[in-house]
Amino acid sequence: MKKSLVGCLLIFLSAGISCVAQSGQASEVFNADTAHASPYNLYGAQYPRIEADSRVTFRFHAPDAQKVQVSIVNVPFDMVKGSDGVWEYTSEPQDKGYHNYWMIVDGAIVVDPATNAFIGYSHMCNGFEIPDPDGGFYQLKDVPHGNVLIKNYYSDVAKSWRHIFVYTPPSYEQNTTDRYPVLYLQHGGGEDERVWIEMGRTNLILDNLIAEGKIRPFIVVMETSAVGPQFPMPPRTAATPATAPGAARQATQAPGALVQRPRFRFSFDKYADLMIRDMIPWVDENFRTIPDQAHRAMSGLSMGAMCTKSVTLAHPDTFSYIGLFSGGTIAPDEISDKSKVKHVFMSYGSRERGSEGVEAAADVLNQAGIKSTAYVSPLTAHEWQSWRRSLYEFAQLLFKE
Amino acid sequence: MKKSLVGCLLIFLSAGISCVAQSGQASEVFNADTAHASPYNLYGAQYPRIEADSRVTFRFHAPDAQKVQVSIVNVPFDMVKGSDGVWEYTSEPQDKGYHNYWMIVDGAIVVDPATNAFIGYSHMCNGFEIPDPDGGFYQLKDVPHGNVLIKNYYSDVAKSWRHIFVYTPPSYEQNTTDRYPVLYLQHGGGEDERVWIEMGRTNLILDNLIAEGKIRPFIVVMETSAVGPQFPMPPRTAATPATAPGAARQATQAPGALVQRPRFRFSFDKYADLMIRDMIPWVDENFRTIPDQAHRAMSGLSMGAMCTKSVTLAHPDTFSYIGLFSGGTIAPDEISDKSKVKHVFMSYGSRERGSEGVEAAADVLNQAGIKSTAYVSPLTAHEWQSWRRSLYEFAQLLFKE
Repeated sequence: MKKSLVGCLLIFLSAGISCVAQSGQASEVFNADTAHASPYNLYGAQYPRIEADSRVTFRFHAPDAQKVQVSIVNVPFDMVKGSDGVWEYTSEPQDKGYHNYWMIVDGAIVVDPATNAFIGYSHMCNGFEIPDPDGGFYQLKDVPHGNVLIKNYYSDVAKSWRHIFVYTPPSYEQNTTDRYPVLYLQHGGGEDERVWIEMGRTNLILDNLIAEGKIRPFIVVMETSAVGPQFPMPPRTAATPATAPGAARQATQAPGALVQRPRFRFSFDKYADLMIRDMIPWVDENFRTIPDQAHRAMSGLSMGAMCTKSVTLAHPDTFSYIGLFSGGTIAPDEISDKSKVKHVFMSYGSRERGSEGVEAAADVLNQAGIKSTAYVSPLTAHEWQSWRRSLYEFAQLLFKE
Repeated sequence: MKKSLVGCLLIFLSAGISCVAQSGQASEVFNADTAHASPYNLYGAQYPRIEADSRVTFRFHAPDAQKVQVSIVNVPFDMVKGSDGVWEYTSEPQDKGYHNYWMIVDGAIVVDPATNAFIGYSHMCNGFEIPDPDGGFYQLKDVPHGNVLIKNYYSDVAKSWRHIFVYTPPSYEQNTTDRYPVLYLQHGGGEDERVWIEMGRTNLILDNLIAEGKIRPFIVVMETSAVGPQFPMPPRTAATPATAPGAARQATQAPGALVQRPRFRFSFDKYADLMIRDMIPWVDENFRTIPDQAHRAMSGLSMGAMCTKSVTLAHPDTFSYIGLFSGGTIAPDEISDKSKVKHVFMSYGSRERGSEGVEAAADVLNQAGIKSTAYVSPLTAHEWQSWRRSLYEFAQLLFKE
């Protein structure tokens, strides 16, 4: 209300028009070998700064604060206050790829306004990106680009509008009669439909694979598996440290307002119902899909892998390809009709619990006559680089048989 | 790196799958008349809570902080600490529509992690939304929906990839031979290409207008006018209070790292060059446009209006329709060839400086033989409700003559 034209002119004058608002899919995330500003920093902010050895230096101006920490992937580290009121911390070397961070100022979990914000841990986070010399597969390149569409559709199951991202391959707009297979791609816990574009760079991975002739082009559908009314979270307790997963949302507003606790149901049945009754029919009606079981895949990361397993095994006539990224394995006796499953892909980062057993799990499936591939992402944990690589591998198996 | 499967399971368990991650274009922003959580709150967060009388109650958990303020549209208000460590503030009644806010914790400008984040003031902000009984024109309705496409293209002028949003009307996908006029729609200072979708709800406004038969369907292109390398901001000085526009970005990291000051140029020449040489040819090549002056419009808000005026008047053979939302007027002698201009639209919120003169400015243009329309948005200031309404009015004038 008080924002005046004069105020906006001041913004304009102070920012200068030469500044670039860095948003969207940063184009230089893979090959920097000298210290540089993280590509998600806004308006020329120099921190987080990615050092040449993959350490990360954070700075935060909080002259009146008693204690400031930076939480890197949910582990808090104390920053040191300088005489100028700027707190600083340089991390250990970080894994390649995207990572969440946030600030903790005198006990309050907060987001750094100088860096783009991303959903994670059930709240907004900041992000930084460590270059990967082998990361060209998710680079923005001069190849034909598909479309990323932001759509809304109404779900009778959810009784609400649903916000959905759809990737169509470059050829989709060129030949307007061709039809395409579809991959349904799920986010992890505390995330939503945005992440496979914003952090996963799904469109770029597929554009590049298509340009190299390595995959059969397909459509990707990204939706949130959260269905139903919102429930306030239970109040933060002594057993829930401020930096526990999901605690930031509680920490900022608890305990007064947040007293209603949802009855816990570890079930993806309602999302399966939504997919079968609403989403898949809507996709098949609004996009040129090949609307049959043989041309429909589902995969997801972490909680999204559990969701994928639950939905695909309960609906063997709907999906033929199954991809679990960092979220468990499938045993032969969990599959009711092995003739329906064309391929089971299971992956982990090498630093994750689960990575040690994924090859054996694939062997067991193959021995049972169910085609399966295991993948272990080198030197990564439960993080986006594992999932970018998993998508890259899984995509090359899809819709070829 | 430390994010483990166990950690993600904890997120999942603590959040419960019944929670809905509220992102994207909230569908209930226009007609609530009882107290309710702002539609941009994440995972069931109850605050900011929009009271029935359009006051807004904020809560923030910061037990160790000495002082917490909430900055509403860049004006800070002291919050009061409760015995539970939760700070609270209830505002005066707010104008209808979208507004930015952020938190100031012991002097540090920060973003509330429990609410979606939006670009503004050259940094990330939080947002809340006041219902408008007359806001049905930007509601998500059961009408045919166009596409919002996220695209990247390479600009030789900028020597970088550009992130761009494109709206295509519902009929675009139905009849694949029809061609459409194009509106180039600009953000304000300290914003970028996201805002006309995320806060402006451009796609919904046009979907609804098309469904009512009130406009000729057209394509909308949304890009950032920022061109060139990023420049660090000058350090924060005593003359720059922490809550001044653009100060948050400085405040979090200054002064050590931010010493280089860009040479200030109040010029949109480079963006005009980018539009003429790169963007418009790319749009005309990649979309079914009617690629001529008579079917090309440009408009923008605040700084984007100044940009629009600069670009369109310098390139009269490229644009025929001009829209200035809260960003000045045009005098007849500024137009080199009045036969080239089909319509000049100029608007302000009634509470803005500038609103008192916009009708007279349109009269002068009309008397000079240049068709012009003025619009004053009732009871709004330099804010999104003025610009949603301006787009709604301007769209109805476009491409009809």
